Amino acid sequence: MGRVTERRKVIRIRDGAVSTRPDTLVAEEPLEIRLNGKPLAITMRTPGDDFALAAGFLVSEGVLGGAGDLQNIVYCAGATADGTNTYNVVDVKTAPGVTVPDITLERNVYTTSSCGLCGKASLDAVRTTARWTIDDAPPLRLEPELLAGLPDRLRAAQRVFDRTGGLHAAALFTEDGELLDIREDVGRHNAVDKLIGRALQNGQLPLSRAVLLVSGRASFELAQKAVMAGIPVLAAVSAPSSLAVDLAAETGLTLVGFLRGASMNVYAGEHRLALPATAATS
Amino acid sequence: MGRVTERRKVIRIRDGAVSTRPDTLVAEEPLEIRLNGKPLAITMRTPGDDFALAAGFLVSEGVLGGAGDLQNIVYCAGATADGTNTYNVVDVKTAPGVTVPDITLERNVYTTSSCGLCGKASLDAVRTTARWTIDDAPPLRLEPELLAGLPDRLRAAQRVFDRTGGLHAAALFTEDGELLDIREDVGRHNAVDKLIGRALQNGQLPLSRAVLLVSGRASFELAQKAVMAGIPVLAAVSAPSSLAVDLAAETGLTLVGFLRGASMNVYAGEHRLALPATAATS
Repeated sequence: MGRVTERRKVIRIRDGAVSTRPDTLVAEEPLEIRLNGKPLAITMRTPGDDFALAAGFLVSEGVLGGAGDLQNIVYCAGATADGTNTYNVVDVKTAPGVTVPDITLERNVYTTSSCGLCGKASLDAVRTTARWTIDDAPPLRLEPELLAGLPDRLRAAQRVFDRTGGLHAAALFTEDGELLDIREDVGRHNAVDKLIGRALQNGQLPLSRAVLLVSGRASFELAQKAVMAGIPVLAAVSAPSSLAVDLAAETGLTLVGFLRGASMNVYAGEHRLALPATAATS
Repeated sequence: MGRVTERRKVIRIRDGAVSTRPDTLVAEEPLEIRLNGKPLAITMRTPGDDFALAAGFLVSEGVLGGAGDLQNIVYCAGATADGTNTYNVVDVKTAPGVTVPDITLERNVYTTSSCGLCGKASLDAVRTTARWTIDDAPPLRLEPELLAGLPDRLRAAQRVFDRTGGLHAAALFTEDGELLDIREDVGRHNAVDKLIGRALQNGQLPLSRAVLLVSGRASFELAQKAVMAGIPVLAAVSAPSSLAVDLAAETGLTLVGFLRGASMNVYAGEHRLALPATAATS
């Protein structure tokens, strides 16, 4: 557990010169998440923060809404022949009285949770499972300059990325641009789940005054996770998808993409950005 | 169907200047894959090449090994209230006599197919489900310069990426560096499944003399897909994970990462690269 990186031999080729040396790689291992003893999902993740990952995943699925919904999380024994614990199976026990939704096929599909047979069904599923609406009263009012500074803070805080190049990062910031927490993982959805799960464990849900920044693209799934945690602003360094924009527009999430230097695109929820009054109609 | 991009309004902020204009986004929609009528997986994908995506997914799962295993693929009616076909559900019918493996929890988890409770179990699962070993006789012998030229060819062939910035690309090349096929998708695993599925439909499996190039990182899952299709070389523009390297080493897959300009790292299967004889031991 906690094996964030591993070492392997690599042959480096640089402009025709060949050398062999040890290299640092991002660790990837499967994690099985059980809910009250029943297998629910398996995800390939970077070991570490596994309890937070499991808790955050269950927030995204609408199972957990606060620390009070959680009884405990434990590592189960792995399935190795000699009984060794691989620290790759966690069981989440919900508190008495918590209603656990039916575990259907759809809910077993990790990266496609809550989606249906069309984009509209995917949006509906988020609305029906969400514990909160996004509720930042008074609404956040962010200067574009503040958002523009966040990617540099993310990179400065990334502990592993520079060594392996194989990790996605996600971070939570306050509305004043202060870093609250950062997580890294081989899967971007895992990095966000780890952030949200830690927030749940700390009794901070919904994160109604936080800004979520992700190092890559903004897919439907990441927008869904932001909504399920009550986060009002999702900013991505790269492009959003059409369905992420649709979900943001429907739920009131502010979605910013291509956040690079002093440039960014605002796809939804522009009322939270301090823009000239003419912007929305120009 | 075939909605590769969609248009949405965006507010652009560039060095303090604000403007509103239409923007092109990569389309993202759920696709449910059924196997002989039974729901198997849902993936968020970019519409288009859906039959190839479903076929390639089933190659990765060990269900299909050649065009002869496939009876047909059809779109099913979607679940909208008015009965409209959303083109988001496909049913794959296997040919008579094809053994369909048990559909267990693990096999329903799209991005984590064939993984177990530890990295070793993940490797074992690939070995037990693979239809072929990687068998390129005589072994490929690639000049590093040839590999170095492939990313530029990939980018030149990418039709959508420059417009949306939201797509992953995957391409197959011959051992002489000629582009065989390229697919793009909001999910990198989908792009690879589309390539492999198309190859299956064309009777080209196993792809024992092909080079697979992916625009991003090389995860365990992508290495698994290469192995399941019998592809001997996987090259990635960015970093591999530890488990991808372990799988490559175990199966004889050549794994190249950080393929940028004249630089690259070779993590496994270096016998397929034309390197100075001293390289492996220097």
